[in-house]
Amino acid sequence: MTDQPPIADDIEHAAERIHGRVRVTPIIDTGGADDLVDAPVVLKLELLQHTGSFKVRGAYNRVLSAGSPPLLVAASGGNHGLAVAYVAHRLGLRAEIFVPTTAPAVKIGGIRLLDADVTLVGTSYAEALAASLERAQRSGALMVPAYDCAEVVAGQGTVGRELEQQAPAVETILVATGGGGLIGGIAAWWSGRARIVSVEPYGAPTLHAALAAGEPVDVEVDSVAADSLGARRVGGPGFAAAVQAGVVPVLVSDDDIRRTRRLLWTRLRIAAEPGGATALAGLVSGVYRPEPGERVAVVVCGGNASPADL
Amino acid sequence: MTDQPPIADDIEHAAERIHGRVRVTPIIDTGGADDLVDAPVVLKLELLQHTGSFKVRGAYNRVLSAGSPPLLVAASGGNHGLAVAYVAHRLGLRAEIFVPTTAPAVKIGGIRLLDADVTLVGTSYAEALAASLERAQRSGALMVPAYDCAEVVAGQGTVGRELEQQAPAVETILVATGGGGLIGGIAAWWSGRARIVSVEPYGAPTLHAALAAGEPVDVEVDSVAADSLGARRVGGPGFAAAVQAGVVPVLVSDDDIRRTRRLLWTRLRIAAEPGGATALAGLVSGVYRPEPGERVAVVVCGGNASPADL
Repeated sequence: MTDQPPIADDIEHAAERIHGRVRVTPIIDTGGADDLVDAPVVLKLELLQHTGSFKVRGAYNRVLSAGSPPLLVAASGGNHGLAVAYVAHRLGLRAEIFVPTTAPAVKIGGIRLLDADVTLVGTSYAEALAASLERAQRSGALMVPAYDCAEVVAGQGTVGRELEQQAPAVETILVATGGGGLIGGIAAWWSGRARIVSVEPYGAPTLHAALAAGEPVDVEVDSVAADSLGARRVGGPGFAAAVQAGVVPVLVSDDDIRRTRRLLWTRLRIAAEPGGATALAGLVSGVYRPEPGERVAVVVCGGNASPADL
Repeated sequence: MTDQPPIADDIEHAAERIHGRVRVTPIIDTGGADDLVDAPVVLKLELLQHTGSFKVRGAYNRVLSAGSPPLLVAASGGNHGLAVAYVAHRLGLRAEIFVPTTAPAVKIGGIRLLDADVTLVGTSYAEALAASLERAQRSGALMVPAYDCAEVVAGQGTVGRELEQQAPAVETILVATGGGGLIGGIAAWWSGRARIVSVEPYGAPTLHAALAAGEPVDVEVDSVAADSLGARRVGGPGFAAAVQAGVVPVLVSDDDIRRTRRLLWTRLRIAAEPGGATALAGLVSGVYRPEPGERVAVVVCGGNASPADL
């Protein structure tokens, strides 16, 4: 895997490649007194994407770039696994998804519904990843990494490109960070033209820790958003893009995330997963305070949680 | 109450009046193989409106047209009650909402959260309505009818106007009908320029029955969508607008509505209430079959149900 960040051209090509295969997700303007937060904010509703998260963008770009080989392999018990299974299903390919035994049954079930083979292995993402890499090497299948891959990061960058078409005057964009694919892609697209704020749980601070250390480092993971933001370490291309764009890292508490998720539901009837509510939690908590009049956008990046507890 | 349908000018004025007070709700393009339905369709996500339904548009237009008098009265244990309570809260007015004792506790709770006075009376909407009319007359308060009122219908018509700005090439619009406020407003705006399809449950066929009878008539109500579409009789202005626009009435089963609601959740992470899924059920059920290439829009009009059963 290369640690070169994607550039705008890579994202432009990714957008051409995946055009018509992914949804153009809508934005909504909210804010002002008595709304979500006191100031106006543009929400990018990427949870309305196929499979309920942005992950299909990167998966499609990786697979189509590689000429859609017949067998895909990925490790993930969550949104990335769903995305790779979906892409395989739509393109008529086979997918083998390696999943730790600790993954939620509902997500494993969702992956199986898309006709992918699920292999349960180990109790951590790291073990599932190791098994998937071995399988890919042995079989000649295409590995589709969750974030540590230039084509995947470029695909996620199409969220940033699309947002610019919809809200060109945006000055600041808040994005939740797990493995760094989404923030890396968005930072690469907007580099030098908008402030990119990375929002992470205190209990899963991969980018925060990497920026402090000057390189990707392992972190302990324990957060309500761990099932989507719980990578152990930020990926190389995403980290490089974040450094180049001068991403501002902030941290929020699990309580802030829960409260924001609840607020998205009660005020907007948007059913985000904890990781999908995390970027907005950066505003709701007051950890990031925009200047008066600052034009702020927030990516609501996933909705794959049971709505029962809303 | 007048039975004159609103005209485009009334809707234009309503849009000016409520501008900045209601959200511009987004649209999303879906459809094609393996998506919601086989053909492309534009969804108007009006469930993302303040209070979770289109009802604030009509309530605002009624109240602002009347000069925002200090006391509002309405009858509704559901979306209209929430909307009137919200409008009062935002404008600094008082609201008294008359609610049948059979209304869901969650909606009554939502109305109280907006600081409105809730009066429980009788076991039917008709009884709550009678009590509210008496109270309005006695107190000089402004009655805000749920649908049988020209200003309310004109306010709901702004959904149609907004949709035209977002998707001007639309040829057919599917809308769920209860009391006829939403369909009346949309029909008035698009009259002669698009086919308007009214979708109702078999168990709440107010407009279907009225068009068959040539005038509004009472119907029996028994449907999973009754809490939002369960009016006993279609309102005068909405009916007049529907007749004038040549609205096509179709009926769907409760099973179709449940299936469509589930599909909106699994495929799009949209948490609609049964009434909010009813218009799309017209397509999912095959009751309305677009021609190849026909440009179809569907209004997803409300999201005020517990998401627990999704």
